[in-house]
Amino acid sequence: MEKLAPILQTIVVAKNRRSSLEFDEPSRSSDFCSGTGICRFNPYIERRSRTVWTCWYLRGYYIGKSLVQRKYYGSVASGLQKNPTFATLNLDDVNYFKGILGEKNVIQDEDRLATANVDWMHKYKGSSKLLLRPTCTEEVSQILKYCNSRRLAVVPQGGNTGLVGGSVPVFDEVIVNLGSMDKIISFDKVSGILVCEAGSILENLDAFLANEGFIMPLDLGAKGSCHIGGNVSTNAGGLRMIRYGSLHGNVLGLEAVLANGTVLDMLGTLRKDNTGYDLKQLFIGSEGSLGIITKVSILTPSRLFSTNLAFLACNDFFSCQKLLLEAKRKLGEVLSAFEFLDSQSMEMVLAHLDGTRNPLPSSLYHFYVLIETTGSDPSYDREKLEAFLLQSMEGGLICDGAVAQDTNQSSSFWHIREGLPEALSKAGTVYKYDLSLPVEKMYGLVEEMRLRLGQSAKVVGYGHLGDGNLHLNISTPEYDDSVLRKIEPFVYEWTSKHKGSISAEHGLGLMKANEIHYSKSPETVQLMASIKKLLDPNCILNPYKVLPQSVLH
Amino acid sequence: MEKLAPILQTIVVAKNRRSSLEFDEPSRSSDFCSGTGICRFNPYIERRSRTVWTCWYLRGYYIGKSLVQRKYYGSVASGLQKNPTFATLNLDDVNYFKGILGEKNVIQDEDRLATANVDWMHKYKGSSKLLLRPTCTEEVSQILKYCNSRRLAVVPQGGNTGLVGGSVPVFDEVIVNLGSMDKIISFDKVSGILVCEAGSILENLDAFLANEGFIMPLDLGAKGSCHIGGNVSTNAGGLRMIRYGSLHGNVLGLEAVLANGTVLDMLGTLRKDNTGYDLKQLFIGSEGSLGIITKVSILTPSRLFSTNLAFLACNDFFSCQKLLLEAKRKLGEVLSAFEFLDSQSMEMVLAHLDGTRNPLPSSLYHFYVLIETTGSDPSYDREKLEAFLLQSMEGGLICDGAVAQDTNQSSSFWHIREGLPEALSKAGTVYKYDLSLPVEKMYGLVEEMRLRLGQSAKVVGYGHLGDGNLHLNISTPEYDDSVLRKIEPFVYEWTSKHKGSISAEHGLGLMKANEIHYSKSPETVQLMASIKKLLDPNCILNPYKVLPQSVLH
Repeated sequence: MEKLAPILQTIVVAKNRRSSLEFDEPSRSSDFCSGTGICRFNPYIERRSRTVWTCWYLRGYYIGKSLVQRKYYGSVASGLQKNPTFATLNLDDVNYFKGILGEKNVIQDEDRLATANVDWMHKYKGSSKLLLRPTCTEEVSQILKYCNSRRLAVVPQGGNTGLVGGSVPVFDEVIVNLGSMDKIISFDKVSGILVCEAGSILENLDAFLANEGFIMPLDLGAKGSCHIGGNVSTNAGGLRMIRYGSLHGNVLGLEAVLANGTVLDMLGTLRKDNTGYDLKQLFIGSEGSLGIITKVSILTPSRLFSTNLAFLACNDFFSCQKLLLEAKRKLGEVLSAFEFLDSQSMEMVLAHLDGTRNPLPSSLYHFYVLIETTGSDPSYDREKLEAFLLQSMEGGLICDGAVAQDTNQSSSFWHIREGLPEALSKAGTVYKYDLSLPVEKMYGLVEEMRLRLGQSAKVVGYGHLGDGNLHLNISTPEYDDSVLRKIEPFVYEWTSKHKGSISAEHGLGLMKANEIHYSKSPETVQLMASIKKLLDPNCILNPYKVLPQSVLH
Repeated sequence: MEKLAPILQTIVVAKNRRSSLEFDEPSRSSDFCSGTGICRFNPYIERRSRTVWTCWYLRGYYIGKSLVQRKYYGSVASGLQKNPTFATLNLDDVNYFKGILGEKNVIQDEDRLATANVDWMHKYKGSSKLLLRPTCTEEVSQILKYCNSRRLAVVPQGGNTGLVGGSVPVFDEVIVNLGSMDKIISFDKVSGILVCEAGSILENLDAFLANEGFIMPLDLGAKGSCHIGGNVSTNAGGLRMIRYGSLHGNVLGLEAVLANGTVLDMLGTLRKDNTGYDLKQLFIGSEGSLGIITKVSILTPSRLFSTNLAFLACNDFFSCQKLLLEAKRKLGEVLSAFEFLDSQSMEMVLAHLDGTRNPLPSSLYHFYVLIETTGSDPSYDREKLEAFLLQSMEGGLICDGAVAQDTNQSSSFWHIREGLPEALSKAGTVYKYDLSLPVEKMYGLVEEMRLRLGQSAKVVGYGHLGDGNLHLNISTPEYDDSVLRKIEPFVYEWTSKHKGSISAEHGLGLMKANEIHYSKSPETVQLMASIKKLLDPNCILNPYKVLPQSVLH
């Protein structure tokens, strides 16, 4: 108690406490003059072989590039062949699309196609010859109706920030990018219900809502580029989930276009509506393979301005779990984040991330926990957190801790957790896994992996403990096939054995389409395939993704 | 400010502030010695013609009955004929079921069938000759596999507390009651994830969780009888929705049996799982027409013990809306209920509900609002509410108000809101509508209905303002066809025109299956029908409900 008490001081409300770069997910938007709104750069990461270049753009103009060490490895669906039932694009097709969309929205320019063909990590690359940019639902409908009749395969694309190869072509699929459909249609201040087009950028929506006193119920690192349609299609989780829940609860309505061009109006703006099957739910998380989402209706919470952050140390993982339980009880309604990292994570950050300082320098503890609260009253909320921390210290759950005293300290605490992926990428090769596991079993995988790999690799565990989401990262100086073979399929088998999910929030995409059986039973996969064939009989929408080809053909 | 300030006094934590009878929905369980747990009666309401008898049971034994005035009228699907493709039950069928379930779980007793054939309101009555009580998933699977092969229609039944005729047979369907499947399978205290069988009674689950420091994320009047499987199948809303959101967000996993006997294991226990389509969502709210839910995994929040309640008066509906907006902003994380009633509602309660006292007797105001907060710290939460109320009074949003000072006062405030259906039923005939509407438009319907009906009826409006859920009730001394013709289809057309839902939380069942087009587009209804036919090609599951017969055959 003595140790913690002196540092329980006034905490400044940290409105923008997180940097706009969230490294668990990609971001192309980084504001280098934070708060000024003047200089907005768009770094774009380009990768050739195993060398990764960050290309910097200012207001769309290329201004230079810098070398960064980013290497990602993991299972990739391989040995795929183009579906022989798909047609190949011809001049008549292009002219037809020009007739619908006009010349400027039918893009064949090689440079622009090169960008759209490659994912953010440069791990997946397609060879599409055509990018279409519809401006309204009717155009999306006409595009799909035509593609379906011609059996032209289609990839719906939003901000192209996905991590599993879901948003880029595999072969020569036509890319349909929703970026021109970014209008806010309505906002009801009493209910907090926002209706907008699917191409709206998440950060723009959040900025619009800020003026109205509301926030988006989700937040993720890619917010400067990702589209709300893509968020919904991938059932994005992100940082606010522990507080506001999943998109399955927050999305109130959708408009989606089926493969045959049928427009499904499910765009309800009601919190309660029990009239028939809740079809919109099928489109949430189906990664664009059942239809293209064109409009979204979403419930947004009121924006609360009082935020507090504590950086704490625990002796063991059991204490972290118990602390989570107590935080849910005692902080209840104000708890907004509960993140953990292990000592290996801390070492990694201190060694490889410039300007990082250990907030608890007296010792290297086994585990660290970040607890954030967000509420409507700064003084009440602070007192509540302080009382909780004192009690937890007395009870022996935490052995050291610091509470952020101002925005800078808050940012530096978050920087440790959020800078981890960057630190890992600087340390060498990273084998990355985004897993969901029962909280009590979560750290067992990290420990088993350490035993399995011995001295050949560093195993690092951190993640959203409050959501049961583990980011398992394995670091080696160089890429090594034998290390990968020791990790996979073991990591998937272990996760499956403990009833976990091999994809907590990133989706399956191309990367894990064939691994779905680790998390889903044969009967459910079979039903998914039946629903896919019902909604998209020619399987033109986002082919080769989500489901194994074997269950579709 | 002067008016409110003197009554802002200490509020006792009202742990059980609501009576177990919630009159918007049926309840068969009423604890007459509240808190003692000794005398638990199970009133069962029986209706013949237009006279309603409440039959009282003590621990299952009939102990007497009393006359109550309950009359419900509304649209009922009529002119239905039994689907000619369905078979009629024979002795071989019964013997087959006895072979699977044993004699005692194959029920042909007339008295027991009579109960199971009739809904809670005695508005819908079937003529089933067989009630089956499976004890495990495998038995449910064998029952359905057999029924499907024989084309015997099936009604899944939980607590049979539905209000739209969804849980009883229409003709001679076989009733499959899940009441014997009521085991708690697991509970994870760290994550708050509960897994149980579908026949578990909501109140029992809540009692189990109370010992663990958690609560169910839903609460409704029928909790003493309703099953969690039925709650999920009907996507029950209830009292805690404004705080904890819908079941689409809180249900983490399901096990369900399809019409052909296939067991779908979707029983995840993870907050995050993005591996393929979220099939379980299809079963939430599909009213047992796509499969029988046999197990449920649900996220439960920590139980918070500090509850405050204010009863307030507003001059107009616009002030109610603005107060809601402010409450969401200022009370934010502790707001747990926001209910409203109009002056006609108050008059109705004062005139017909014994022992009711107006908490604000100095005047009859146009609108009344109940605001409840639930948090983790009694003194902080109380101060927060008081500060908010003073500010709202100064700002002119509320013109009078009282804060409950103890459990009794809290109960008496809630009694006004919760006693409304009872008061209405005592006043004469009630035409009841459960609608979802954009908050700003909600009261317009009440006013238009008043103009439309003139002196022929009393129009009363109240409901869950925080969820946009209006309970529109029209009261006349006697039932009158001409009044009904003035109400319907006008009420549905008005709701449809303003993008509302004709069923906020009760579902469509038999009552509104043919009215689905008022809330859903033809394309979505068509897709619902396709999904129904995909999952249940012989349409044996809960026939005649949810969807119009015309789209299925």
